[in-house]
Amino acid sequence: MKIGIIGAGRIGKVHAKNIAMFVREMEIKTIADPFANEETEAFAKQYGIAHVTKDAEDILNDKEIEAVLICSSTDTHSKYIIESARAGKHIFCEKPIDYDLGNVRQAIKSADDAGVKLMIGFVRRFDHNHRAVYDMVQAGKVGTPHIIKISSRDPEPPPISYVKVSGGIFYDMMIHDFDMARFLAGREAVEVYTQGSVLVDPKIGEAGDVDTAIVTVRFASGALAVIDNSRKAVYGYDQRVEVFGSEGCSINANDLSHTAALMNGEGTVHDHCYKVMWDRYTGAFVSEMKAFADAIINDKDMPVNGLDGLYPVLMAAAATKSLKEGRPVKISEIE
Amino acid sequence: MKIGIIGAGRIGKVHAKNIAMFVREMEIKTIADPFANEETEAFAKQYGIAHVTKDAEDILNDKEIEAVLICSSTDTHSKYIIESARAGKHIFCEKPIDYDLGNVRQAIKSADDAGVKLMIGFVRRFDHNHRAVYDMVQAGKVGTPHIIKISSRDPEPPPISYVKVSGGIFYDMMIHDFDMARFLAGREAVEVYTQGSVLVDPKIGEAGDVDTAIVTVRFASGALAVIDNSRKAVYGYDQRVEVFGSEGCSINANDLSHTAALMNGEGTVHDHCYKVMWDRYTGAFVSEMKAFADAIINDKDMPVNGLDGLYPVLMAAAATKSLKEGRPVKISEIE
Amino acid sequence: MKIGIIGAGRIGKVHAKNIAMFVREMEIKTIADPFANEETEAFAKQYGIAHVTKDAEDILNDKEIEAVLICSSTDTHSKYIIESARAGKHIFCEKPIDYDLGNVRQAIKSADDAGVKLMIGFVRRFDHNHRAVYDMVQAGKVGTPHIIKISSRDPEPPPISYVKVSGGIFYDMMIHDFDMARFLAGREAVEVYTQGSVLVDPKIGEAGDVDTAIVTVRFASGALAVIDNSRKAVYGYDQRVEVFGSEGCSINANDLSHTAALMNGEGTVHDHCYKVMWDRYTGAFVSEMKAFADAIINDKDMPVNGLDGLYPVLMAAAATKSLKEGRPVKISEIE
Amino acid sequence: MKIGIIGAGRIGKVHAKNIAMFVREMEIKTIADPFANEETEAFAKQYGIAHVTKDAEDILNDKEIEAVLICSSTDTHSKYIIESARAGKHIFCEKPIDYDLGNVRQAIKSADDAGVKLMIGFVRRFDHNHRAVYDMVQAGKVGTPHIIKISSRDPEPPPISYVKVSGGIFYDMMIHDFDMARFLAGREAVEVYTQGSVLVDPKIGEAGDVDTAIVTVRFASGALAVIDNSRKAVYGYDQRVEVFGSEGCSINANDLSHTAALMNGEGTVHDHCYKVMWDRYTGAFVSEMKAFADAIINDKDMPVNGLDGLYPVLMAAAATKSLKEGRPVKISEIE
Repeated sequence: MKIGIIGAGRIGKVHAKNIAMFVREMEIKTIADPFANEETEAFAKQYGIAHVTKDAEDILNDKEIEAVLICSSTDTHSKYIIESARAGKHIFCEKPIDYDLGNVRQAIKSADDAGVKLMIGFVRRFDHNHRAVYDMVQAGKVGTPHIIKISSRDPEPPPISYVKVSGGIFYDMMIHDFDMARFLAGREAVEVYTQGSVLVDPKIGEAGDVDTAIVTVRFASGALAVIDNSRKAVYGYDQRVEVFGSEGCSINANDLSHTAALMNGEGTVHDHCYKVMWDRYTGAFVSEMKAFADAIINDKDMPVNGLDGLYPVLMAAAATKSLKEGRPVKISEIE
Repeated sequence: MKIGIIGAGRIGKVHAKNIAMFVREMEIKTIADPFANEETEAFAKQYGIAHVTKDAEDILNDKEIEAVLICSSTDTHSKYIIESARAGKHIFCEKPIDYDLGNVRQAIKSADDAGVKLMIGFVRRFDHNHRAVYDMVQAGKVGTPHIIKISSRDPEPPPISYVKVSGGIFYDMMIHDFDMARFLAGREAVEVYTQGSVLVDPKIGEAGDVDTAIVTVRFASGALAVIDNSRKAVYGYDQRVEVFGSEGCSINANDLSHTAALMNGEGTVHDHCYKVMWDRYTGAFVSEMKAFADAIINDKDMPVNGLDGLYPVLMAAAATKSLKEGRPVKISEIE
Repeated sequence: MKIGIIGAGRIGKVHAKNIAMFVREMEIKTIADPFANEETEAFAKQYGIAHVTKDAEDILNDKEIEAVLICSSTDTHSKYIIESARAGKHIFCEKPIDYDLGNVRQAIKSADDAGVKLMIGFVRRFDHNHRAVYDMVQAGKVGTPHIIKISSRDPEPPPISYVKVSGGIFYDMMIHDFDMARFLAGREAVEVYTQGSVLVDPKIGEAGDVDTAIVTVRFASGALAVIDNSRKAVYGYDQRVEVFGSEGCSINANDLSHTAALMNGEGTVHDHCYKVMWDRYTGAFVSEMKAFADAIINDKDMPVNGLDGLYPVLMAAAATKSLKEGRPVKISEIE
Repeated sequence: MKIGIIGAGRIGKVHAKNIAMFVREMEIKTIADPFANEETEAFAKQYGIAHVTKDAEDILNDKEIEAVLICSSTDTHSKYIIESARAGKHIFCEKPIDYDLGNVRQAIKSADDAGVKLMIGFVRRFDHNHRAVYDMVQAGKVGTPHIIKISSRDPEPPPISYVKVSGGIFYDMMIHDFDMARFLAGREAVEVYTQGSVLVDPKIGEAGDVDTAIVTVRFASGALAVIDNSRKAVYGYDQRVEVFGSEGCSINANDLSHTAALMNGEGTVHDHCYKVMWDRYTGAFVSEMKAFADAIINDKDMPVNGLDGLYPVLMAAAATKSLKEGRPVKISEIE
């Protein structure tokens, strides 16, 4: 199966490398980026990609290409989904689809109308530790979920320039956790409540965002979830989930790069957590691309579909509104 | 120093035993209980308590007795605090002081007016694991606290008859966690928001309470806390705290009775958690009594004073109101 | 039941305190020590011991005393066992019974002849972590034991003066591990092989001993054990055991005083291990005395009997011989 | 750099895949196997290997090929090392070089004489957990090593047919641990002592081998190591090392595939260990090939050289002799 990649930035290259190395069912024919240059050519050559172009149309118009990876900037996602769908190509799109709910819905509809498959890049669903908790929940080992807890903390805040355009912590960071909460709960949220503070960097507050937030989520079943985010954990990437239910509790520990510890006069020291997102989620990115190929080739449902792209955006909108208005906000209030 | 104990129920006996065995600075002269019987006499004899009486007045009127432990039912706490204070005796009173804020305040004032020391029984402050986190926070090892997380889950719900009179989950169970949140944060809460559900037993709902609750707490500094409670964890007592701050994160693990594990075809199995509260907090009850004796004998401030008895009740009231009204409630709204 | 304690040194006082505080079935009538002084009198008063004497005969001749704790220096153990047996008293004796195998056997025989119970102070059998592994093995959870591993490391070497008279590392330190190996294996050793080095302090070598040793033990069943000892672990007391068998592996972790950890730029740090033996084995000493009282009062077999006192001494003798002769030594070669 | 692979069995294919996917500096031109068939052709095609041949000479005679991977049966290793050396090619050879010490020495000499690099496949040196302990030791964090402990247990014994020809547990299994002991100690063994038993399967005993063994190793510095092996751990692959020294102790835990645990009525259950060697050491095999390419391309010393191939064989010979003769055997006694 031949594919094209729209966007040759960091995430586009990660997917390209992983496909070249691990996903032999897919062959990357073309990579498109308006800023493609010699370095892009060298990259393409190294990973066996036949064509580099500045024009995404070269992918959309290529009859041989069956599937497209949309790795361009967020504001172009819905446009490329619609165009790829019209061109009859299966689609993988990075999250979020769009900040505008109308655009999100239109993009999903276009894929449905065209009968092409659409997958959204919530990569953490493919992480070995989070997946292990999910598998236990699915196997019924915790019984009915009652309480879901998600901690998600980054080593460093993004640049202030990014904070200003990202849509805020709920759209660019906690959106992963909104997806994770739904994924683990196996159902949809009905209400969220946000508490947020500026504790890491006052510049984040000046940019209109918070850097520390706790969101409580209520599901229709009465199950509750709580997510905490911080833009800065000095010890590195901190990613933990817990599902407590009627029959038990499934909980994972943060990921370390090895199991070795040092016992000395200071106590017992385990090594640093991951400091770099790409190192932390190396395996998850590979599994994600394999799942995408598998769904197309074996005609399965996409493991993260268009609605999975929509709901976290609804939750992010509700969480943002809750923070502003200082009250719980129902998902049904959004739009 | 001679002391008297008012109330010879379960908690009264636990304190009596611990004092007899571990706190040689105090001698229990009299234990009073309106239902004192032969079994009480036998208990007293076994632990070297000279007198058993049905009348608490025998303690209050005894000039030789310097300090009183109030271990009677909650509705009598404020009354006995006031009477003990008037009699010039130092006071240890089990939590909560009272459900009525007026009574709480009057009781605290009476001790202040009489110049006697008043300690409230928030025993978890003396637990080795929680104390170790507190000590790290106090030593500045996490920097400024940003996020505090407390999980507190009981092995079994109390009898429905108790649920009906206890004041509800926020007064009888989460009150410990409200105290712990303040203790770890080192400051007062300004606002709380409650999400609660009936997921464990519908009878709890019929009694007007919830059995699963998540409360978000906001402190004046902008620090946030989140507490989750469940009335039923099938795996036993689950008590964990975490303080995340600008310089690190202090976190404890649930307490197990030993470090042994079994590796077999099922995986690696660590033994059961504690199933009984008294086993889980054995050491904490001893440390609590030692701290009480130490504060009196060495004329130190009580480690848990009257205001420490008041604030968690305010938080419980606000959490209850938040649940009923479906909105965040400021502590300043209470009374 | 009234008892007497011969020897008011450190271990005598630990047992006295524990009995006074926790073992209400026994009453210490008399404590005897040739060096008894005002401090001994004060100690006795504090813990409710009626008599202090310089002469152990006052205990042996006291008809009211049913049991004796022998906590005097090792060279007097066998003498006092024999005299106590003749006086018809049940006996608890600290380990080791004696360095001389003839004396050990005579002491055991005297108790047998007199029909009194004899218990030897291998306190680690009563430790919660080691006991948990033992219980798993006894419950058949590891199947047939194949490999037993014991790590036992002290925070600091003893004074050189003690090394010179203690009989060496195999008699004063590894003897606990010889007992533990037999206890966990549930059978007797047939052969040992020793490798030893002087790596901690050359003065220990000058005193004729080693400070680092690994002993391999072969049991009749073909099961193998390996014990490693070091006189100095900079991180504190390190005590771990592991039993690997046909159906699984039971393993314990070293004991820490609490479960709290700090995550910071250095990694994740768990607190120091215990640095003091008495802190590490607090609970074990209490359980040991309770077991002694229980065996007498309820006429049960002693949990650590005279032969349990003999076999580790045989193993220590064989290990010492193996080190000297540079070859494996059969237990049957000893004496 | 073009390379050839001699031997297209399991290990040959693992290296071929890893090079094709991860080591872009090397291109596999030819793979040779006397049993090459259609399946080998398909494999070669899938991984971009240009030529498949039944004759290793096609590799040895190919001027374009700069390096050779010897992945054929053990009895052909030394022959192919010698021939590859004569052909001027750098060599990676699977362990062990040979069971015959003369052959091992001759092979090493041939590479030295020809001035080609020779690397031996002790893959565990490249494992993330073992490497982390090694790095701590190298960084001086444990001070001078005193005690090294290695546990290495397989999930299942190999077929009896293999046991009969493998040279026994010390040559086919513990040889990895002999290498690890040297690697961690940073020095050579001077003496070994073996205790071994047949506890897993009597057929292994009938084939002249043991299935459970403990070997004590003495280094010239006086440092001691102990290795335990079992052919069958019901819980899966168990691989742990520990280096205890004057300043601390570096210890790793067994590897699990994720960090998730389940707390339920049984306790806290961590998932199964790896059951398959290839899964357990996935990353190590990749790192090993990268290290091989790096040493050639950047003209560095091989990370596991010819002498690293010799010494573990000497230790295996001494351990075998020790088991047979029931006495410690000096390495200098071998040959």
